[in-house]
This record gives sequence, C-alpha cells and structure tokens, in this order.
Amino acid sequence: MDTRSGFHEELESLEQSLLAMGGLVSQAVRDSVTALKELNQPLAEQVIERDDQLDDMQVEIENRCLRLIALQQPMAGDLRTIGTVLKMVTDLERMGDHAVDIARTALKLSGETLIKPLIDIPRLGEIAQEMLGIGLRAFVDRDAELAQTLADRDDDVDHLYSQIFRELLVLMIEDPSTIRQATQLLFVAQSLERVADHITNIGEWTIYMVTGERRDLNL
Amino acid sequence: MDTRSGFHEELESLEQSLLAMGGLVSQAVRDSVTALKELNQPLAEQVIERDDQLDDMQVEIENRCLRLIALQQPMAGDLRTIGTVLKMVTDLERMGDHAVDIARTALKLSGETLIKPLIDIPRLGEIAQEMLGIGLRAFVDRDAELAQTLADRDDDVDHLYSQIFRELLVLMIEDPSTIRQATQLLFVAQSLERVADHITNIGEWTIYMVTGERRDLNL
Repeated sequence: MDTRSGFHEELESLEQSLLAMGGLVSQAVRDSVTALKELNQPLAEQVIERDDQLDDMQVEIENRCLRLIALQQPMAGDLRTIGTVLKMVTDLERMGDHAVDIARTALKLSGETLIKPLIDIPRLGEIAQEMLGIGLRAFVDRDAELAQTLADRDDDVDHLYSQIFRELLVLMIEDPSTIRQATQLLFVAQSLERVADHITNIGEWTIYMVTGERRDLNL
Repeated sequence: MDTRSGFHEELESLEQSLLAMGGLVSQAVRDSVTALKELNQPLAEQVIERDDQLDDMQVEIENRCLRLIALQQPMAGDLRTIGTVLKMVTDLERMGDHAVDIARTALKLSGETLIKPLIDIPRLGEIAQEMLGIGLRAFVDRDAELAQTLADRDDDVDHLYSQIFRELLVLMIEDPSTIRQATQLLFVAQSLERVADHITNIGEWTIYMVTGERRDLNL
C-alpha cells in the first residue's frame, strides 16, 4: 500500500468485508427468529456458535481501519468513510448479539409448547431484515435518500413492537400460566426492535458519510 | 500539535474528556434509578435531557481520535490506546442510553404506586456504579489486574439480576394486577445488567490496551 490507489483498493476491500459481515448478521437474525418460531434447537445453537465469527470480523475490520488511517493519513472525505465503517461494524456486531439473545431464548423454550403461534414476531424479524438490506445498499451506493427511508420503516417497527407488547400483556393478564414464556417473548420483541434501531444507525452513518451531516432518523 | 509531546498532550486531554463523560454516565445511571425508586418525574426528565450532552461528547471524542490518528501516525502502543478510547466511548454512550430507558420507565410509572418498594434494583444500580468507578480507575492507572476484578463483580450482577427476574415472575403469577408494572421493572433490571456488561467491556479494552491481548471477562 504505497500509493493513493492502494489506499482506495484497501478501502474498497474494507467495504467488502463490512458487507460480508452484514450478510452474516442478516442470516443470524433470520435463523434466530426461525429457531424460535420452530423451537429448532440445532439452528439456535448454530446462531450462537457463528457469533464468534462475527466478533472476529469486527476486530479484524476495526484493526484494518485504524491501520489505514495511521498509514495513509486520509483526507476529510476518506476519513469520514473509514469512521463510518468503524461505527457500522459496531452496530452490526450488536445486532449479532441480539440474534444470540433470541437464539438463547429459543433454546430455553425448546422443551415447551408455544403459548401462541408466532406471527408478529417473525414479521418484525422480516422487516428488520428488509431494513438491513436497504441500509447496506444505501451505504454501497452512497445513497443518502435511500438511507433516509429507513426512518419510515423504523416507525413501522415501533408500531408493530407496541402491538406485540400489548397483546402479550393481555395474554398474561388473562392467563397467568403464560407469564413465564410471555416475558421471554417480550424480550425477543425488544431485541428485534433494537436490531431495527441499529439499522437506522447504519442509515445515519451513511447520510453522515455522504453529506457530512449527522441526522437523527430515530425520532 | 507539531511535536510528539503535543501528541501525548492531546492523548492525555482525550483521556480527560473520556473520564468526564464517564462521570456524567455514572450520574445518569444513579439519577435514573433514583428517579424510578422515588417516581421522581423532574429527575427523570433531567436524565433524558442531559443525554444530548453525552451524545455530543461521544461525537467530539471520536472525531478527535480519528484526527489524532490521521495527523500523527501513532506507533502500535499509542494506536492501541486511541483505539481503546474509541471503543470505550461507544460503551459509555450505550450506558447513557440505558439510563434514558430507565428514566423513561420512571416517567411511565409516575402516576402509579410501586407494586413493591424497590431494593434489589437500586442495589443493582449501585453495583454498576461501583464497577464503573473501578473500570475508569483501571483505565487511568493502566491496571489490567484491577480491570480483571470486574469479571467477579459482573458475576454478582448476573446473580442479582436472575434473583430479581424470578421474584418479579412470582409476583406476576400470584397477582396478575402487577403484570403491567412488573414487566417494566423486568426491562429496568435488564438495562442495568446490560450497563454492567458494558463496564466489563471497558475492563476488556483496558486489558487490551495494557497487554495487547483481548480477554473475555463476561464468561
């Protein structure tokens, strides 16, 4: 990496690594929700095991970012891009942690019968995954407008989350035998709501990278 | 900042800013739990308002870290220190977010009577604050052994959190009229458990900074 073109190659390779990590996170979220829905123990265990890989990717990407900054003294725009990658990788890793939390819940409930067929929670998971796809595309395409659309999707998530919350409360009040499991499902819904928050963060970083402006999508 | 000594002055000033932020986070956690315990609405509102300040501090510290790396091309050890500050500032900001979540719960419950006097939740808050003090001291003193002690304290937190969880479940099962509030308190306990997790992260970053080795304290 002696030249400016070497710098931009390394930056592009960093972005590819970030996208690869985004793909694994998306899979982790999807598999964790499926594992819960089907009370599928082996799938839940896979999500938990694969999280080490995400942690390793985070460390590797971070170290490469810091080295790139130190060696190449990038200009303002490139520095902002590397700063964005540094922040996004943290959000991706946290999303992976939420998937692990959901997978652990799937393991906890694996001997039981679900108190109700899960429909809205998987729907929440699907929206989160769609959002992640949009967030990563906006980043790759430097598309601040597309990133901005995540705010609306996050409103959908907040709405659905409130609905799930109310339904589970009613279920618990009507039938106290559901309380133990319903509280677990409340935490799952919260995890997915947090996943969506991290994706809006990713959208905010993209807007920052493109415009230099920090905008709060999560209002 | 034309000289190496200028570099170390700026690094020291960065550390001071990080400690100042740590102090505000500690206050936010303490005040949020007090606001909940006393259902003190003005105090809860203060915690929420002051969070903007924490967000601004995070942005400022991060920007200074990136500029310092770009301008000074630090050696491996110094680069590790700046990387540590970058990571710690994320953990501190997340802790502030958890304090805001707790303060919002205090607002939500502010017209109600508590289903039980809160003793274990404030205790959890106190342990978290002690841990934060230890974590920041270990960072300042470059004391990897002190940072390592956070693992034991985090075990205490996990133990107390499980106990609170079980008690709240029993309460809900025995008296369904407590369900709405008890689920809120479950989330509060979870927030404090997460705060403690972030402090063990801070301990891990300190160990990494001192030894170059990444150790998982949260086992």
